[in-house]
Amino acid sequence: MFLAGAMLLPMPVSLYYGDNDLLALSASAGVTFIFGFLVFKLTRFKQDLRAKEGFAVVTFGWLVFSAFGSLPFIFSGVIPSFTDAFFETMSGFTTTGATILTEIESVPHAILFWRSLTHWIGGMGIIVLSLAILPFLGVGGMQLFKAEVPGPSADKLTPRVTETAKILWGVYVLISAAEVIFLMLGGMSLFDALNHTFATMATGGYSTKNASVAGFNSAYIDYVIVFFMVLAGANFSLHYQFLRGDYGIYWRNKEFRYYIAVILGACLLIGVDTFIHQYHNVADSARYTSFQVVSIMTTTGFGTADYEQWSSSSQFILLVLMFVGGSAGSTGGGIKVVRVYLLIKFMLSEFVRLIHPHAVIPVRANNQVVPRDMLMNVLGFFVVAMLVFTGGVLVMTLIGLDMLTSIGATAATLWNIGPGLGDVGPTDNYAAIPVVGKWVLSMLMLMGRLELFTVIILFSPAYWKK
Amino acid sequence: MFLAGAMLLPMPVSLYYGDNDLLALSASAGVTFIFGFLVFKLTRFKQDLRAKEGFAVVTFGWLVFSAFGSLPFIFSGVIPSFTDAFFETMSGFTTTGATILTEIESVPHAILFWRSLTHWIGGMGIIVLSLAILPFLGVGGMQLFKAEVPGPSADKLTPRVTETAKILWGVYVLISAAEVIFLMLGGMSLFDALNHTFATMATGGYSTKNASVAGFNSAYIDYVIVFFMVLAGANFSLHYQFLRGDYGIYWRNKEFRYYIAVILGACLLIGVDTFIHQYHNVADSARYTSFQVVSIMTTTGFGTADYEQWSSSSQFILLVLMFVGGSAGSTGGGIKVVRVYLLIKFMLSEFVRLIHPHAVIPVRANNQVVPRDMLMNVLGFFVVAMLVFTGGVLVMTLIGLDMLTSIGATAATLWNIGPGLGDVGPTDNYAAIPVVGKWVLSMLMLMGRLELFTVIILFSPAYWKK
Repeated sequence: MFLAGAMLLPMPVSLYYGDNDLLALSASAGVTFIFGFLVFKLTRFKQDLRAKEGFAVVTFGWLVFSAFGSLPFIFSGVIPSFTDAFFETMSGFTTTGATILTEIESVPHAILFWRSLTHWIGGMGIIVLSLAILPFLGVGGMQLFKAEVPGPSADKLTPRVTETAKILWGVYVLISAAEVIFLMLGGMSLFDALNHTFATMATGGYSTKNASVAGFNSAYIDYVIVFFMVLAGANFSLHYQFLRGDYGIYWRNKEFRYYIAVILGACLLIGVDTFIHQYHNVADSARYTSFQVVSIMTTTGFGTADYEQWSSSSQFILLVLMFVGGSAGSTGGGIKVVRVYLLIKFMLSEFVRLIHPHAVIPVRANNQVVPRDMLMNVLGFFVVAMLVFTGGVLVMTLIGLDMLTSIGATAATLWNIGPGLGDVGPTDNYAAIPVVGKWVLSMLMLMGRLELFTVIILFSPAYWKK
Repeated sequence: MFLAGAMLLPMPVSLYYGDNDLLALSASAGVTFIFGFLVFKLTRFKQDLRAKEGFAVVTFGWLVFSAFGSLPFIFSGVIPSFTDAFFETMSGFTTTGATILTEIESVPHAILFWRSLTHWIGGMGIIVLSLAILPFLGVGGMQLFKAEVPGPSADKLTPRVTETAKILWGVYVLISAAEVIFLMLGGMSLFDALNHTFATMATGGYSTKNASVAGFNSAYIDYVIVFFMVLAGANFSLHYQFLRGDYGIYWRNKEFRYYIAVILGACLLIGVDTFIHQYHNVADSARYTSFQVVSIMTTTGFGTADYEQWSSSSQFILLVLMFVGGSAGSTGGGIKVVRVYLLIKFMLSEFVRLIHPHAVIPVRANNQVVPRDMLMNVLGFFVVAMLVFTGGVLVMTLIGLDMLTSIGATAATLWNIGPGLGDVGPTDNYAAIPVVGKWVLSMLMLMGRLELFTVIILFSPAYWKK
């Protein structure tokens, strides 16, 4: 029912631009509302959620949103195929930004607006998921560096989630409003500013231009978007603390420091390379490099440069950044900075243990001992991630894609970036991927977005045992 | 001094074929002997090894062997550059088989013999290292499925290693003799049979033909080598048990079963693909597929087909097999079957823990609980492996190789296979890699061969602290 309500939001856009999408939108909203109402009525007897049921609720929630969210694309005739429409919508709600549209600028405004809106709604879901729901379900590693998560710390899931959600969504809306204003100051129309803000804040990546952000050809707009992408890839509870007046919170948070350090390091490495081999000009090199590094690392996927023209080392660094991803509690995807940090800390502790075999060496991070269970969860995540990635690439090669495209497409969907490498690079799209591939990539987006465990656990027989 | 003695072994070959390498060989042996004798004299005051010192002894042992083992190549003028000669020798002693030679058939017989012999000597070292030394040093995961390792189980390192070494080397020599006979029955000369046996039993991959094993063009020889590669990639203590009369030992050993299962599974997947797209003939498809799968999985690296002509899925499966590698206690490289098995078991246990958060779920494998420390060691190995692999690819792209070549070269050296993908594929070699790249790849071979920890630990400040 919430989704049906959201489908009414593009209507003013349709009226303003005089496009013919009111019928498509209202039909979509109607179908979605009726389904939602029925489900609501049929499931009202349920008293309270148990933790275990959370996995199914979250996974099926995203699936149902993507199925019904694709209706405006289908009913408007913009994307007639259900496979394509589902792919596009899943890519929207998972804030991936991988598109099957080749000619974006000819799509009616209201439908483009809906497309960007799926990002923004997905981003709202992710913030709450990662800061309130997943830690409760034990999908961990994220809790370590959490700045105090706002909201009451009750035992039951529901009240806590509601409170936390309200506070964090307030922050989300506020920062979004700021971005809209800054983009309009750079000459963007309200329509473009809203669309790009939705895509930025959710680290999604859908644009209203065929050439993505490059279509605006403005250094000011590039840097504004870089700034807000950096915010979107950081923990939203930090922004909350900051807005409450704790201005030192970013500096005190170790994950944020590592997050910035990785961005700066990658900018330096790639910047030197693009300066020498591409732009021969510090300003251009800084502008295009920083935009692409931040866009990939935060898993947004906007483009201002065709990085496939860059050297293979720069491309490989971008590929590695896809795996690292944003911070915990952000809208970004990827393994997450905090997990990578813990993996490295663990590795170092193993070296010490080999040198002193009889010593007990706990893994310390952020000046505290990392609990065993959290460490095991992070290690488990890493093993699952590598396995799912390998399986994804295998399927892509089996349906006939070349190896680089397979690696790029799998990384770019699993970690919710959007554009990949090879035939799904920044100047290409996913239209030519065979149908099976589109479904598999849609599932990879979902798995990556829900931190792998949440989805895969549903395939375990133990989960369904009474 | 042992190495100096080994350098005399190619002399009869030189005499028989009338090549001019006696001087080069004796000069190499002389220099090596003098150095060895001095070191021996200078270090005799040391009473007994402590575990910690084992890491340095093993690492520097391989380095010194590779430095002095390159002398015959340099003195004979076959490989004038020290970088190239060191690369070729490190590739030999680590049983990798990556070569910088473009025209192998014009190299003098005695030097080719020395080249293959470095494999065989390296293989001897590896068997003892993995079955007697590394478990003692705590580089683990290997102990789990060990069939009873022969030899006394004393507390001190030295006597145990000596006893175990003698027994296992006996097995190694015996199987090698069998392979020589079987190859000669297929029409190979004694010289070719010895060379290929050295390379097979060590899972090395150096051949005496430019076209590798394809140069013999014999299905019989192909299958003989497949059979002995499978043996070389299995745990040598199993062979010992078998030779003592325990014929069921292979079937009872779980790692061996998984090892065979992965080979058969890969043969099936790739076989169907090569049948459809390449050979259109069951016999050819079975022959070339099984050879390549076993050659890559055991990390030998012999070639009978240009697998870069195969589909991208078959190539990707081969790439994954490079990472899996052989069994623990074999001469094969890679992550090892037992570690992959433990990683998957661990991952499954993490799923169960998410479903039952308050239950204590130990990881069970082979009907026993896996000790915590061993599990952590395997997880640490995996994290280090992925990090070193990523670093290796980054360096390769930085020196200008394309991404596929960088991935192929890093995987093929780190996991001691030899031929990779792209410009270092089965029909190419490593001659064109820049000097820096050759040194980095040499270090990757060493790291992979010594199970990563053994080498990297020497870079840790904690190791050198009193």
